[in-house]
Amino acid sequence: MSKFNRREFNRVLAGSGSIGLFGAATEEKPQKASESEPGPGSITDVQGVRVGHYTDSRRPTGCTAILFDNEVTAGVDYDGSAPGEQLGVMLQPVSLLEGIHGILLAGGGPMGLAAVPGAVKYLDEHHIGYDWGVPNIRVPIVVGAVIDDLPIGDGRIRPDAEAGYKACLAASAGPVAEGNIGAGAGATVGKMLRAEGFPGMKGGLGTASLRLGEIVIGALAVVNASGDIFDWRTRKVLAGARRQDGKGFIGLTETIKRQLAEPPAHASLKLSDELLHSTTLAVVATNVYFDKMQLTKIAMMASCGGARAIDPYHTTGDGDQLYALSTRSLRRDVPVSAVGALAAEVVAEAIGRGIKQAESIEGWPSYRDFTLHL
Amino acid sequence: MSKFNRREFNRVLAGSGSIGLFGAATEEKPQKASESEPGPGSITDVQGVRVGHYTDSRRPTGCTAILFDNEVTAGVDYDGSAPGEQLGVMLQPVSLLEGIHGILLAGGGPMGLAAVPGAVKYLDEHHIGYDWGVPNIRVPIVVGAVIDDLPIGDGRIRPDAEAGYKACLAASAGPVAEGNIGAGAGATVGKMLRAEGFPGMKGGLGTASLRLGEIVIGALAVVNASGDIFDWRTRKVLAGARRQDGKGFIGLTETIKRQLAEPPAHASLKLSDELLHSTTLAVVATNVYFDKMQLTKIAMMASCGGARAIDPYHTTGDGDQLYALSTRSLRRDVPVSAVGALAAEVVAEAIGRGIKQAESIEGWPSYRDFTLHL
Repeated sequence: MSKFNRREFNRVLAGSGSIGLFGAATEEKPQKASESEPGPGSITDVQGVRVGHYTDSRRPTGCTAILFDNEVTAGVDYDGSAPGEQLGVMLQPVSLLEGIHGILLAGGGPMGLAAVPGAVKYLDEHHIGYDWGVPNIRVPIVVGAVIDDLPIGDGRIRPDAEAGYKACLAASAGPVAEGNIGAGAGATVGKMLRAEGFPGMKGGLGTASLRLGEIVIGALAVVNASGDIFDWRTRKVLAGARRQDGKGFIGLTETIKRQLAEPPAHASLKLSDELLHSTTLAVVATNVYFDKMQLTKIAMMASCGGARAIDPYHTTGDGDQLYALSTRSLRRDVPVSAVGALAAEVVAEAIGRGIKQAESIEGWPSYRDFTLHL
Repeated sequence: MSKFNRREFNRVLAGSGSIGLFGAATEEKPQKASESEPGPGSITDVQGVRVGHYTDSRRPTGCTAILFDNEVTAGVDYDGSAPGEQLGVMLQPVSLLEGIHGILLAGGGPMGLAAVPGAVKYLDEHHIGYDWGVPNIRVPIVVGAVIDDLPIGDGRIRPDAEAGYKACLAASAGPVAEGNIGAGAGATVGKMLRAEGFPGMKGGLGTASLRLGEIVIGALAVVNASGDIFDWRTRKVLAGARRQDGKGFIGLTETIKRQLAEPPAHASLKLSDELLHSTTLAVVATNVYFDKMQLTKIAMMASCGGARAIDPYHTTGDGDQLYALSTRSLRRDVPVSAVGALAAEVVAEAIGRGIKQAESIEGWPSYRDFTLHL
């Protein structure tokens, strides 16, 4: 695979900035992305939460395991379209199940769920899971959630059980590496009008946390959205659909407006819902004791952070999923709405971080390179 | 009831700005709110949609009827908590029902649904509804949705069937009056930390529309949120929780952060989820042909507009409901995600408009007066 340095890359950007060989990302060691700038905290700041990545060196894809020192309670919100998940339905409030033992985020689209058995194997070996009443057997509940990164590089290469297992082996309570790593390795954004010739940008994995005395709220996001990504505090575009001349952002909603305003005979909004290949995954964690129903509501509120950071959000091509979990270590009367409001902020931060820490791969410039180039 | 002019009002604002007699709003004829400034369009710009208000002159409450020249298809999103609705469940994609004949928005909390039979009576008299196979009987489907304005003035006064009927009588295809009117008459915002002594502000009813050639998207919102309200383009606070000295906004999420950071012994976050008394209702309409399932998705996407304009949004005290409907007059291949993205924008505009057109009532200053005062 060809080496692709930043100077050459910027030259490509000046043109149409499209298509090429893949693999440069892993050669540039994106794992170091988080070293260059102090981060705003990690989801692992919530004690008892561990994160491990496995990044496939053959192309940008991978998976990220989120494991727990003790069983956690979790809820989910999926206003997204066709969310690619495994055991997510068990998190519905009406289901009896209260605790889970792991979350495995992966690239590879629905086929990336093949990585989940690797996490199950790891937990099985460590005797973590529900006591099933069968001697020597414990049943771990691992929720799986995938993004579609199949169009990036050779889509036949996908996270498998070994990848899931290795992500678990790598799990630690330390700061979480961000950018082109784990489930975010092949993440991309701003894809909604690619069929119209407007190229997207590189997305990635980000994390953030908020500590308020003894209360901790953390989030991890895999940013693989069809929409533009914004700094939620300023509504400044961070990454998204680019102009064909490579000189800036098109602004997806403004471009949609212009195109729909054309007379039908000239209208040419090529927005194939099936080709959006998107999904933003987010996981919010807190040490405050909440049950599954409360966490479902917190997940719903936290999704508002996604809506502030991503626009358009929840398109028919975005299988967005947001999981909220509690390690239940802090028993204190904290209103659901207070934590939900702050969780939205931490999610929006983690999304921005996933964009800012991403590094360019051929055809998909990152925030770092593209904003320098503007 | 005492006359309460703006000068006196501003004097009160300089103090704690709380509590007083009610009724001033109706004496000041809030119906004229929309005359003072040209609006950004109305939901009635979607041909075939008519809107009528009934405002109770005895206290700020009322209802708003949305009627249609022909049956419309509708979907709903309710990530809100405990949404006060009637026949909303029939809009679930799995339900067979495809069309509805009216939407009645009302104050009065769950008891405000008493206004719905008035709209049903009106439609019954006009022989509008489903052919039930029974001679001379047509069955109109009127979806009801309420906000809780019971703490504003005498809560024993609530919209009833007569109010609903009168709102239908007033329905027209002209520009929609905004502010303290109809279902928005008793709307208030920024209430999340009232128990902590931070007073809120007046909300209201707003509307907006977007015309793109032959495509029209309109929205109407009744803004009665526990959260702060933002200009979604700039994230500038328009209205919300106020400082105790009346000198500005507290910023709800920042205040929650500060309070949660206190040691538990000193922590005093009095956020009674039950006392939030909130709900933002929104209705999005378009002439583009969509079926119920598509409109459900459009409703979900449009809710992102709420998340951008309101923060915190979807709290446990907000029974937020967003209805999306299609008059089905324009058969053109327009992507669901495109209309969903723009619907989010129109909803956010309508929410801002509801705030900007609201007028102060005692204890609840409006954007107009409060921002002048800052």
